[in-house]
Amino acid sequence: MILSAVKKKILIVVMDGLGDRGCKELNGLTPLQATDTPNLDWFTRNGIAGTCDTVDIGIRPGSDTSHLSILGYDPLEVYTGRGPFEAAGIGLVGRPGDVAFRCNFSTCDGNHNIIDRRAGRIDKPDTTELIKSLNGMKIDGIEIIIKESTEHRAAMILRGPGLSPDVTDVDSHGEGPLNWSKGSTKEAEFTAGVVNKFVKETYDRLNDHPVNKRRSAEGLLPANIIVPRGAGSFPDIQPFPEKHCMKAACVAGVGMIKGICGICGLDVIDLPCDCTGGCSSNFVSKAKIAMETLKSYDFVLMNAKAPDVCGHDRDPMLKCGIIKRLDEMAGYFRENFRDDMVIVFTADHSTPCSLGDHSGDPVPIAVYTPGNVMDDAVTFSESGCSHGRIGRIRGKYIVPMCMDLADRAEKFGA
Amino acid sequence: MILSAVKKKILIVVMDGLGDRGCKELNGLTPLQATDTPNLDWFTRNGIAGTCDTVDIGIRPGSDTSHLSILGYDPLEVYTGRGPFEAAGIGLVGRPGDVAFRCNFSTCDGNHNIIDRRAGRIDKPDTTELIKSLNGMKIDGIEIIIKESTEHRAAMILRGPGLSPDVTDVDSHGEGPLNWSKGSTKEAEFTAGVVNKFVKETYDRLNDHPVNKRRSAEGLLPANIIVPRGAGSFPDIQPFPEKHCMKAACVAGVGMIKGICGICGLDVIDLPCDCTGGCSSNFVSKAKIAMETLKSYDFVLMNAKAPDVCGHDRDPMLKCGIIKRLDEMAGYFRENFRDDMVIVFTADHSTPCSLGDHSGDPVPIAVYTPGNVMDDAVTFSESGCSHGRIGRIRGKYIVPMCMDLADRAEKFGA
Repeated sequence: MILSAVKKKILIVVMDGLGDRGCKELNGLTPLQATDTPNLDWFTRNGIAGTCDTVDIGIRPGSDTSHLSILGYDPLEVYTGRGPFEAAGIGLVGRPGDVAFRCNFSTCDGNHNIIDRRAGRIDKPDTTELIKSLNGMKIDGIEIIIKESTEHRAAMILRGPGLSPDVTDVDSHGEGPLNWSKGSTKEAEFTAGVVNKFVKETYDRLNDHPVNKRRSAEGLLPANIIVPRGAGSFPDIQPFPEKHCMKAACVAGVGMIKGICGICGLDVIDLPCDCTGGCSSNFVSKAKIAMETLKSYDFVLMNAKAPDVCGHDRDPMLKCGIIKRLDEMAGYFRENFRDDMVIVFTADHSTPCSLGDHSGDPVPIAVYTPGNVMDDAVTFSESGCSHGRIGRIRGKYIVPMCMDLADRAEKFGA
Repeated sequence: MILSAVKKKILIVVMDGLGDRGCKELNGLTPLQATDTPNLDWFTRNGIAGTCDTVDIGIRPGSDTSHLSILGYDPLEVYTGRGPFEAAGIGLVGRPGDVAFRCNFSTCDGNHNIIDRRAGRIDKPDTTELIKSLNGMKIDGIEIIIKESTEHRAAMILRGPGLSPDVTDVDSHGEGPLNWSKGSTKEAEFTAGVVNKFVKETYDRLNDHPVNKRRSAEGLLPANIIVPRGAGSFPDIQPFPEKHCMKAACVAGVGMIKGICGICGLDVIDLPCDCTGGCSSNFVSKAKIAMETLKSYDFVLMNAKAPDVCGHDRDPMLKCGIIKRLDEMAGYFRENFRDDMVIVFTADHSTPCSLGDHSGDPVPIAVYTPGNVMDDAVTFSESGCSHGRIGRIRGKYIVPMCMDLADRAEKFGA
């Protein structure tokens, strides 16, 4: 039975990599503990709070697996490897049956021996120009879709009947001869054949390309071959709007988050150029778009990437500054709050400045909607939120919990 | 991707049976609540804390199942019964395929009718002497390995092809005729046959044994038959060092803990005679050995059995005294702490003095490593630790959580 009460809307604000560990520079406090956050604290004090292991206790999540969890999926069931998620991250969202690869632009000699697997760390606009010559390829009836990513990276999708992701990497992860792809089943053997023909064809098309001629003339390494690795199939994910009966959108600046949300069937909202996904991103501008989007959607996931960047850069002072600005963003939500919404402030994972990478430390979570139970948590931090009644939960429970608070949950039983 | 950061070492200090319930003798406090523990409190205040159900909420764990959990295994998956773990507990560590039994030295008449199933609670050295006459037995191609335990108890392993653990107990758990073992499959029938021949053979070898003649002359019951029960196969456990990529050792005085750690592939460190596993054990001496062991290992599990003994003896005052001495041990760790280690203080289960046996009450846990998040727990006790950010976890999460804090966890996703 579905409740007949007014169904609230749900906004999840993911502050990417926000969780941290004690920092020497902050006298053993985390950036969140060390920064005054009156608006985030307001939501914590008036809402319910807890800590969250987005995937599971002790698991260091990627941004892909953690966002899958936050969207209510179990990544242990639906995550099919980096290929499809990286492809989705640059806007190549495939379908079940497609096989995706991560690729490098590399430099090889005339016998396909790799000289530099990153082609001298080539970047846009050269890669954008080179990739055009690979458009529209079809090998053995398989359509090949390829797109450049950051620096020497690209992603590729194979689309057509009879494909398998169980093929080995062509990339040997070093110099010298390529590892031509192999597969041990009939479908995998066929797929490996397509991959190998594709690689040879890229050399034929790229080696004499004007961009490479110019690069060689300038003393730069030519990017004359594309080398795939990390094959994975696109997961057969039940679309979020169907799974949760909510019209859903994503407000994010970073390609990978947009890609994941796209795979899960969320509409990806176009952002103005001041919402970059970087440290200079305008969080209030993004918050306005999230609130605007919520007018025509039931569910919005918003991602602010900046704190993660500070963690990777091992810069706790910058992270404190970013947190201060994220709190101003929370202030915008507070001032413009709609009573018919449930708002969640959390992170996808911790990115401790002392580590410079993601860790498995649980992240703080605060949930507010008018009329919720007020618990005893009063500050939004790794320690402060642990006093709340949410307790310690897994990320996959966030959506069900919010759906209940939004009076959207179905009754189980009589 | 594995982090390239310095990987820390992990030490888990298990204070066996430490958890308790409110004691009348302590004005309703637990021994931990009633005892001043400045060093354990220091680790709690500067680290993270919580409570732990080693197996699951409401489950009264044995020392075997709880230690399996603390080592990161799910006992519901790998625990194969008391036989193999009791055998391991007295140093009989078998292999997959072996079948282990718990046994009693019993007293019977000439027709194998049991007169006393504990042979007048016979003990060492008589059992040690009697067991020698059973060494090296082989029946129907099956090797039989048997060893005496405490009092009238012993354990036995059958080793050879075609065995099954699905056989009934010979022990009738009372006086009168034996229940000759039965099996319903071909392998089980064969195994039951070996067991029954073994039992008859023990009578033939023990009845006229000089030790039993002496006992009869002294008016004691002769231990003239061995009666098996509780058959179980040795679990096919993935060795801890392989599962977690850590070189691992155990520092424990008690046979069962050494046995479990041995089954899990940990190296068992020899201890000097002042580390007994009893109440008089020298905890600081054991702590020194644990720290020394940590120099050449990545992971050490240390067990101090004494608080469990006090619980079984229903002696809260003695337990308080033991806790005071355990806190001195924690002081040794505090003074000799290495910055490249993660230390855990916890228990395998509660052994409330009011109950005199293990209970399912969750146990306190405190984890410390430099640079962890400081939470709001300040005292190490059943109640004090529940303020910490670890929350309430299962024992099987301790190792993953520590591996993350030790920067040894693999990233799941991108």
